[in-house]
Amino acid sequence: MASAALPEISKPKIVDGPGGYVLEDVPHLTDYIPDLPTYPNPLQDNPAYSVVKQYFVHVDDSVPQKVVVHKDDPKGIHFRRAGARQKACVYFHSDDVHACIVTCGGLCPGLNTVVREIVCGLHHMYGVKKVLGIDGGYKGFYAKNTVYLNPKVVNDIHKRGGTILGTSRGGHDTSKIVDSIQDRGINQVYIIGGDGTQRGAALIFEEIRRRGLKVSVAGIPKTIDNDIPVIDKSFGFDTAVEEAQRAINAAHVESESFENCIGLVKLMGRYSGFIAMYATLASRDVDCCLIPESPFYLEGPGGLFEYIEKRLKEDGHMVIVIAEGAGQELLSQSIQSTTDASGNKLLQDVGLWISQSIKDHFSKQKMPINLKYIDPTYMIRAVPSNASDNVYCTLLAQSAVHGAMAGYTGFTSGLVNGRHTYIPFNRIIEKQNKVVITDRMWARLLSSTNQPSFLRPSTNLFSNENGSQKSLDKRVTH
Amino acid sequence: MASAALPEISKPKIVDGPGGYVLEDVPHLTDYIPDLPTYPNPLQDNPAYSVVKQYFVHVDDSVPQKVVVHKDDPKGIHFRRAGARQKACVYFHSDDVHACIVTCGGLCPGLNTVVREIVCGLHHMYGVKKVLGIDGGYKGFYAKNTVYLNPKVVNDIHKRGGTILGTSRGGHDTSKIVDSIQDRGINQVYIIGGDGTQRGAALIFEEIRRRGLKVSVAGIPKTIDNDIPVIDKSFGFDTAVEEAQRAINAAHVESESFENCIGLVKLMGRYSGFIAMYATLASRDVDCCLIPESPFYLEGPGGLFEYIEKRLKEDGHMVIVIAEGAGQELLSQSIQSTTDASGNKLLQDVGLWISQSIKDHFSKQKMPINLKYIDPTYMIRAVPSNASDNVYCTLLAQSAVHGAMAGYTGFTSGLVNGRHTYIPFNRIIEKQNKVVITDRMWARLLSSTNQPSFLRPSTNLFSNENGSQKSLDKRVTH
Amino acid sequence: MASAALPEISKPKIVDGPGGYVLEDVPHLTDYIPDLPTYPNPLQDNPAYSVVKQYFVHVDDSVPQKVVVHKDDPKGIHFRRAGARQKACVYFHSDDVHACIVTCGGLCPGLNTVVREIVCGLHHMYGVKKVLGIDGGYKGFYAKNTVYLNPKVVNDIHKRGGTILGTSRGGHDTSKIVDSIQDRGINQVYIIGGDGTQRGAALIFEEIRRRGLKVSVAGIPKTIDNDIPVIDKSFGFDTAVEEAQRAINAAHVESESFENCIGLVKLMGRYSGFIAMYATLASRDVDCCLIPESPFYLEGPGGLFEYIEKRLKEDGHMVIVIAEGAGQELLSQSIQSTTDASGNKLLQDVGLWISQSIKDHFSKQKMPINLKYIDPTYMIRAVPSNASDNVYCTLLAQSAVHGAMAGYTGFTSGLVNGRHTYIPFNRIIEKQNKVVITDRMWARLLSSTNQPSFLRPSTNLFSNENGSQKSLDKRVTH
Amino acid sequence: MASAALPEISKPKIVDGPGGYVLEDVPHLTDYIPDLPTYPNPLQDNPAYSVVKQYFVHVDDSVPQKVVVHKDDPKGIHFRRAGARQKACVYFHSDDVHACIVTCGGLCPGLNTVVREIVCGLHHMYGVKKVLGIDGGYKGFYAKNTVYLNPKVVNDIHKRGGTILGTSRGGHDTSKIVDSIQDRGINQVYIIGGDGTQRGAALIFEEIRRRGLKVSVAGIPKTIDNDIPVIDKSFGFDTAVEEAQRAINAAHVESESFENCIGLVKLMGRYSGFIAMYATLASRDVDCCLIPESPFYLEGPGGLFEYIEKRLKEDGHMVIVIAEGAGQELLSQSIQSTTDASGNKLLQDVGLWISQSIKDHFSKQKMPINLKYIDPTYMIRAVPSNASDNVYCTLLAQSAVHGAMAGYTGFTSGLVNGRHTYIPFNRIIEKQNKVVITDRMWARLLSSTNQPSFLRPSTNLFSNENGSQKSLDKRVTH
Repeated sequence: MASAALPEISKPKIVDGPGGYVLEDVPHLTDYIPDLPTYPNPLQDNPAYSVVKQYFVHVDDSVPQKVVVHKDDPKGIHFRRAGARQKACVYFHSDDVHACIVTCGGLCPGLNTVVREIVCGLHHMYGVKKVLGIDGGYKGFYAKNTVYLNPKVVNDIHKRGGTILGTSRGGHDTSKIVDSIQDRGINQVYIIGGDGTQRGAALIFEEIRRRGLKVSVAGIPKTIDNDIPVIDKSFGFDTAVEEAQRAINAAHVESESFENCIGLVKLMGRYSGFIAMYATLASRDVDCCLIPESPFYLEGPGGLFEYIEKRLKEDGHMVIVIAEGAGQELLSQSIQSTTDASGNKLLQDVGLWISQSIKDHFSKQKMPINLKYIDPTYMIRAVPSNASDNVYCTLLAQSAVHGAMAGYTGFTSGLVNGRHTYIPFNRIIEKQNKVVITDRMWARLLSSTNQPSFLRPSTNLFSNENGSQKSLDKRVTH
Repeated sequence: MASAALPEISKPKIVDGPGGYVLEDVPHLTDYIPDLPTYPNPLQDNPAYSVVKQYFVHVDDSVPQKVVVHKDDPKGIHFRRAGARQKACVYFHSDDVHACIVTCGGLCPGLNTVVREIVCGLHHMYGVKKVLGIDGGYKGFYAKNTVYLNPKVVNDIHKRGGTILGTSRGGHDTSKIVDSIQDRGINQVYIIGGDGTQRGAALIFEEIRRRGLKVSVAGIPKTIDNDIPVIDKSFGFDTAVEEAQRAINAAHVESESFENCIGLVKLMGRYSGFIAMYATLASRDVDCCLIPESPFYLEGPGGLFEYIEKRLKEDGHMVIVIAEGAGQELLSQSIQSTTDASGNKLLQDVGLWISQSIKDHFSKQKMPINLKYIDPTYMIRAVPSNASDNVYCTLLAQSAVHGAMAGYTGFTSGLVNGRHTYIPFNRIIEKQNKVVITDRMWARLLSSTNQPSFLRPSTNLFSNENGSQKSLDKRVTH
Repeated sequence: MASAALPEISKPKIVDGPGGYVLEDVPHLTDYIPDLPTYPNPLQDNPAYSVVKQYFVHVDDSVPQKVVVHKDDPKGIHFRRAGARQKACVYFHSDDVHACIVTCGGLCPGLNTVVREIVCGLHHMYGVKKVLGIDGGYKGFYAKNTVYLNPKVVNDIHKRGGTILGTSRGGHDTSKIVDSIQDRGINQVYIIGGDGTQRGAALIFEEIRRRGLKVSVAGIPKTIDNDIPVIDKSFGFDTAVEEAQRAINAAHVESESFENCIGLVKLMGRYSGFIAMYATLASRDVDCCLIPESPFYLEGPGGLFEYIEKRLKEDGHMVIVIAEGAGQELLSQSIQSTTDASGNKLLQDVGLWISQSIKDHFSKQKMPINLKYIDPTYMIRAVPSNASDNVYCTLLAQSAVHGAMAGYTGFTSGLVNGRHTYIPFNRIIEKQNKVVITDRMWARLLSSTNQPSFLRPSTNLFSNENGSQKSLDKRVTH
Repeated sequence: MASAALPEISKPKIVDGPGGYVLEDVPHLTDYIPDLPTYPNPLQDNPAYSVVKQYFVHVDDSVPQKVVVHKDDPKGIHFRRAGARQKACVYFHSDDVHACIVTCGGLCPGLNTVVREIVCGLHHMYGVKKVLGIDGGYKGFYAKNTVYLNPKVVNDIHKRGGTILGTSRGGHDTSKIVDSIQDRGINQVYIIGGDGTQRGAALIFEEIRRRGLKVSVAGIPKTIDNDIPVIDKSFGFDTAVEEAQRAINAAHVESESFENCIGLVKLMGRYSGFIAMYATLASRDVDCCLIPESPFYLEGPGGLFEYIEKRLKEDGHMVIVIAEGAGQELLSQSIQSTTDASGNKLLQDVGLWISQSIKDHFSKQKMPINLKYIDPTYMIRAVPSNASDNVYCTLLAQSAVHGAMAGYTGFTSGLVNGRHTYIPFNRIIEKQNKVVITDRMWARLLSSTNQPSFLRPSTNLFSNENGSQKSLDKRVTH
């Protein structure tokens, strides 16, 4: 084992095929540890899996990233299909596996289901008994509180919101974490978290690889905002959109019951407006949806105030949905001009800020309005996952377990075009998933709300496609 | 008709009986209009009511206000039982009735059910066809938008939150309203609203009586805060407590998932903490409940910060429920010491203020905490009423209809010790219903949360009972 | 005092007062055990209760059974108010208490909350540590599986449906149960169950009294059907009515979507139709409600088939709610005429039977209909209790605990006119609570559904009041 | 082109490309009507769509049917991507469009959303004003009740279950329907229904083509069972799986509260067990899931009774989920052996039949059991669609509208690998979608429930793959 000889950062594993076929494969323990022993796959003795071979995926199964194609298109990028392999033996003996699970970042419906299914998957499918729960996110790696998990302990946790493991933001120290992994003799690491967490997971993988350890690192992407690229959607997203309906309904009822009333709902989405967009599309009661990807302005012709005034005069009421990251430029300008420190902190909530801005504007206009502001964020995050997210979390967790047992490492378990795949970390963390406001879904939204595009007449965002796309891309990659 | 001879304010109608029995009766049109014609009760021809006489209430039926009694107690105050009277004919001919309904104040689950059942009750039980909906609260009386209501129009409204009539606060101008009633020829006025609204209804009744009009004025008390005295509880209260559980659950899940985490929920209750108290009792997940009736302080021994620190050190998390009117003295002190106008407005929300106070305190203490603040107010107010509130609203509405048809006026329809009664306005508006913190329910709450009493060691609030009660009473009657 | 000297059945404890006041008091351990030592009430040291004396009930507090009164009425029957007494010391030392809890009969929302609050009440209020859970109903007394309960074990159980103790029907053997109580040294027995269970509790109390044991027996009435007399309503009832709305809504949607479609919902209520009646009143979508108390017939003028045909011809759809005990006479006649044993068993479900009868009738009439039958029974019974039932269960449990600690025995904890009381067993078990179809609530229902009374023209049920009441009473007491 | 010259059945439109690419295109009005005029696409003037060209799909966009591929695989079958085309003008002038919508078959969550979005899509996107609602399914075409639909009428219908149009089964008479279409001057027909309905839609299309009419026929597949092939899933399926959780939870609570208790839930799925399978996977509380695709037997080693006995002895309780079409062979055998006609009808419900079979078996075994049977079918079907189904229905409807406006006909709007496509009818109706019990999802289920495979030792179903597959295929295509 010559870890010294390894390059600092592992190279992407690219496999080419005919017709422009490209497989972006994930790392494997044998990439840097030669002569690893293999073991018969215990699944072959599992009554559920043993009956026929179709239960297993073929080692060459792959899934294309792009499924809208023209007949002459090259086949393009593919990812490795997730799942148990029959012939390919596993690289861990069940008795030797010492797995750990950590949840990081904010709450998201389904966290407990993923934890449950990693534990149950390892236990029931592969006979693994040692599964450690890391307490309170990354920093739990170098704390003492850990708890051993088994199917009995996790039996009912999928019916509860939150995460039984606890979570936290930040606290990532790669070498301390890998020290802890090494000290405890852990050889499978399951990391559930958002893009920052996955970036941390990539660093952990690289360090483990550098040290030449036989430790599989598997990521399960978690982001209620759906801002992780490549994958179809993140777990908990459906539940969040569903739960957001309650807030929108309340805003709708309030706005209809009072004169000149605006129901304003702030939804999650610091950098991407997926929840706001889908919640708006699902509800059909929203008159205006503001997201980070689509700039807007308040004053003057074509601005938000003008649109509000129009709707109030026509209908007497309206519902606005705003993602938490929308209008940040406006917000930061506004805040710089005020001085009081304690007040400012509160104003940095875009919902409070825009509420105040709207009230101030119409107060100046001598037009009496009612504004009802609802921030359901924690009420959405904390619910248990719904049925479809439960199934989704189960498959994500099982895929991660199959992958780690098969010796893959440095991968994220993700759904691509409806199929479970293993995606290399670099693809997950290189940029954020965004609502593309020049794409069809946003057009559907505009068509549904009838809101203006809020593009200043002078803005050339769309007239010059190259230029605009560049500026968009820049925002996308920050 | 000699309205000139009438005193400005009608006298309470008190009927005495043996054993200390007192009936506080409600006014009747015949009190000031002699020789009113009567009509046979159409209910006698209603197949549902006609079969047997038990369907009807006896004219002497009354309900005691006090039901915890000792064997030697006098019988005490009673109210007239609500309901249709068989023998007593009605004082309106169905074809002559021109009723109107108005909803005032904030939203409350069940408003639409009450509206629906007044319309359906008048229509189906008494054959009344002309029922006007006043648009947008009291000020709708002198606006032009009105809508005629019938069973078909209101058929499904009880499944929706809000009020189809629209509502508003204030806008009460007694003589303009009575002018409008007179101009339109309205002779039954149903007024749904809180204590301010009922006070307005009392003024309307007095003015109508002064003018000698044959117009019945019936109030249906509406207050999500349950702060109306005499009655058992207000409609929508059960639904509100139920819906508040969602927010408390979310706060509980959030607080358990993060280290040193406080889940903070603000609930309705400007002057009385019933929703906070019942939601706390129903949930069993709350560690501290703060209400307007129970003063508290932040700093020092026995204060809130000390208690928070204790719970975080013991459990790592806690849930606080605060009624919107709690800690107003602290809040106003705090605000006077800051200067920025726009910031202050936001700080007047007790939830935002106490969040910031807690964060500031522990930041000074160098103790890192997480605080998740949830304000579910509008999400609670805007839901449709649950089944038990639906039944309750139905009976309130039907009682009001029976009362008005029977010629009673200046009354509120209300539940007293589980029985529907007619209560004179003065009893409803003379003070607010409060959580009595020296009573058993609050003891149960303290016992459930294990929170301290937050009584300063120096406070003599309870040691000298007379004194303290006086000061309490003072607070009660403001 | 030798138990041999005691009469077999304890006499009711009646206390008379002036003005016709009667207190039907509950037994006390000192009734048959002289010279029992007393102990200071630990609640006096409980911070939640100790502050002021109003937290405690007065020993003479009582609650009238009847609250619709005339001014000359005698004061009538009263029950003892439940709650902790300050001056009256307790009859058990906390360390000596060995309590047990048993749940019997069918499921009902709130069972777990009652169990939780007995455990937490004993523990937190009185410092009692030994609380045994009896497994699987009465027969668990003579089985070996028992489990000690403490606040930690029961912490979250109120969020789950069912009963963690398990339950069963029957299995009551008085002397074996009392043997077991004696053998285990249990001195407080909390029995949660319906009228049969309370009857069993009465027998256990009598046997304990006969043996002269210092054991308090407290009943908490449980019946989802609300068929227990005296008390305002049983716990879980509100939740059941709420949950029944789902089924009625589904029936309504189905019936509106198909031609000539009948949505039929069977609800609980073997002997009393309260759930069916309240669910109908709450929903407003029901066209016909059939309950055990109101006989009906199928064929001919004024019968059910005629009414169905009328509604289908007018509206194209209808919703019928039937209580499980409705139409039993018709059902048993119908079944006697069929022969197949296995088929019959199924037909004894009134919902399946009436579905088939309706289909057969309209098939004979060559009138094509659709019928959608929904039986939500288990889906209703198994939900967790809603917020108002949670509060109710908490108070019932705490009342029972206060009563047992104070030495009362042979009592049921129950809500009477909105106040918690102790009711002697004999009042609870002497008859069943029924919907009185000559009372106002049923009139409201008829008025809401517009259904016919289904009284055969020849029936003299109501014309001769005495006779009819007798026959009603007979039905009541079976 | 004379319609007489057309072949009776239209040929599939197959387009080949390099690398094995195949496009199975859908018919177009110009296939049989030459020289059709075209019109500028009104969407180009729609502010939501007009801004940039990416909102539109490219005419060559296609979506592969198979996305699990090997690098050497041919590109395979593709479908045309759905959506508005910018350059390709539309084939209908907005003012000339006379659309109609019909819903057929059983209820399914989302029907009203699809209706709403076809109306709103035609109206808002293309300015179409004439949209007719056909009443009560196919037979409504030759009835007189029709209703014109507009955005106002359908505004809130997506919040209600069922279908405002009404529905029915059968009643299809191709030539009468096409006569009606011709008579009324309808030129766009939107048909929402299951496989039988889509088969009818194909016949209508063929007849319209034969007559040479300029009428677009668009299908939207509806099947709560998810038994339509090619597409990812049918709308309403997610909602149904979610709602099924209630019933499973209730069964779980009941079974845990009683001794030897079986909670049995029947779910939809006459020919395919998707709802049962997904509801089982989402719940994690199910011990046995029985579906039509997986045969089972009751008696003897490896049979259901043995498994039940084992679970009851080990755990004391179990939950069984059975799809309505499971065990049909067993059921029909059982029924032939009984004689009573009226009883038999009831027994044909597989849930009632298997309940009775289990009770009879354990009664013979003298093993007392409790069995709680829940049939939530109508309660599941009748709920409104959840948020994700609402979005899905919106896109399905908009796709259908874009397709019809673009002149395509004889197509179904469907989701394939996450992309909306137009699928020729023949692919939708040629077979049913089934759970493949030799595939991974079923293995996951078996692994989750730990139930046996119920394959008789003698069965060679899987040992001889060719043979077994054939027999499976046969079942699939019936």
